[in-house]
Amino acid sequence: MPTPAPSLTGHLANVLLCTDAEPKRFVTREVPEVTVDFAGIVGDRHAGLTRKADVRVPWFPKGTLIRNTRQLSIVSREELVEVARTLGVPHVLASWLGANLELVGVPRLTHLPPGTRLFFPEEATLVMEGENQPCVGPGRVIEAHHPDRKGLASRFVKAAWQKRGLVGWVERPGLIRAGDAVRVMLPPPVTYSLPSAPSESEEVG
Amino acid sequence: MPTPAPSLTGHLANVLLCTDAEPKRFVTREVPEVTVDFAGIVGDRHAGLTRKADVRVPWFPKGTLIRNTRQLSIVSREELVEVARTLGVPHVLASWLGANLELVGVPRLTHLPPGTRLFFPEEATLVMEGENQPCVGPGRVIEAHHPDRKGLASRFVKAAWQKRGLVGWVERPGLIRAGDAVRVMLPPPVTYSLPSAPSESEEVG
Repeated sequence: MPTPAPSLTGHLANVLLCTDAEPKRFVTREVPEVTVDFAGIVGDRHAGLTRKADVRVPWFPKGTLIRNTRQLSIVSREELVEVARTLGVPHVLASWLGANLELVGVPRLTHLPPGTRLFFPEEATLVMEGENQPCVGPGRVIEAHHPDRKGLASRFVKAAWQKRGLVGWVERPGLIRAGDAVRVMLPPPVTYSLPSAPSESEEVG
Repeated sequence: MPTPAPSLTGHLANVLLCTDAEPKRFVTREVPEVTVDFAGIVGDRHAGLTRKADVRVPWFPKGTLIRNTRQLSIVSREELVEVARTLGVPHVLASWLGANLELVGVPRLTHLPPGTRLFFPEEATLVMEGENQPCVGPGRVIEAHHPDRKGLASRFVKAAWQKRGLVGWVERPGLIRAGDAVRVMLPPPVTYSLPSAPSESEEVG
């Protein structure tokens, strides 16, 4: 019944997490595998069925309890290579960005539309919420690794625009392992643009 | 920090629900207001944090427990007027389609992209999952109201294509009342098309 959706396949280069017990509460560290449930990665500090509204959702009063659609951060190795090139540094590691999954082979990952699904071989399925807009935090981590280079923190925000990956949430629990093949399924294509003026004549009272 | 997103405002003509206790387990009935929590409309038979995979998500084995992104059904009065016109019947009621919310004044509602938010005045916020693809069920209800007209059930599927509304889930709990102004916020525009061939040269090992 659903419209067949186009798909492609990438693979998972790295799986990373950051527990509340980590000394550095932003950067993630590589692990061989993680378990995901409906709240996110078990043990990761971003896991939760709900979260408190912050600066990323300014349309809600700060602290409002909302559904957590930012359970995981997903980045593309190819995009991180481009960011590093722009910044003139040898590399930008997924861990420095606090990412949980580093994919290879999905072109223009950050441009995948909301509603895109990532399918993993051991049942886990993620839904993409949207772009993870870059802020200065990861830039500071990069700068800390290159103390001789000034201004990397603020330059990161521009360099990583539309290349900092996506955030998403778990649709189906399961296991995610480094090396997994990852099938990417796009939602059916839609086009919608706002009408230039409300078409009152079409309204039905 | 997030990109400002375009928005428009419609209004809520009708709120409807169907409890498990209803004699007809598909059609909904009008109520003045409903409370929504993270599971959906309190008391509605489609509410739930999770649901079992069915024919609408054939990429999951039937019965798999997945997150429930089909908590509410949202339709457009203008689109239902078009469906009725195509079928040659006086009207197609939102209740016949088992809809929960009937909006007026949102052009091409069914074409809104996944990730679109609907904001209600009393805190409730919904996120659109995507199009609710028409099946023969509502067509049978329409046919039952017009016993003199044959073939309406199967004709409904074609007539309602891309006009049967959307399904979605609750991002923020609250109250939804008939007559509410409904602000519609689109996600930032994205364009993504599958590459014609994998660009191996861009991969970084």
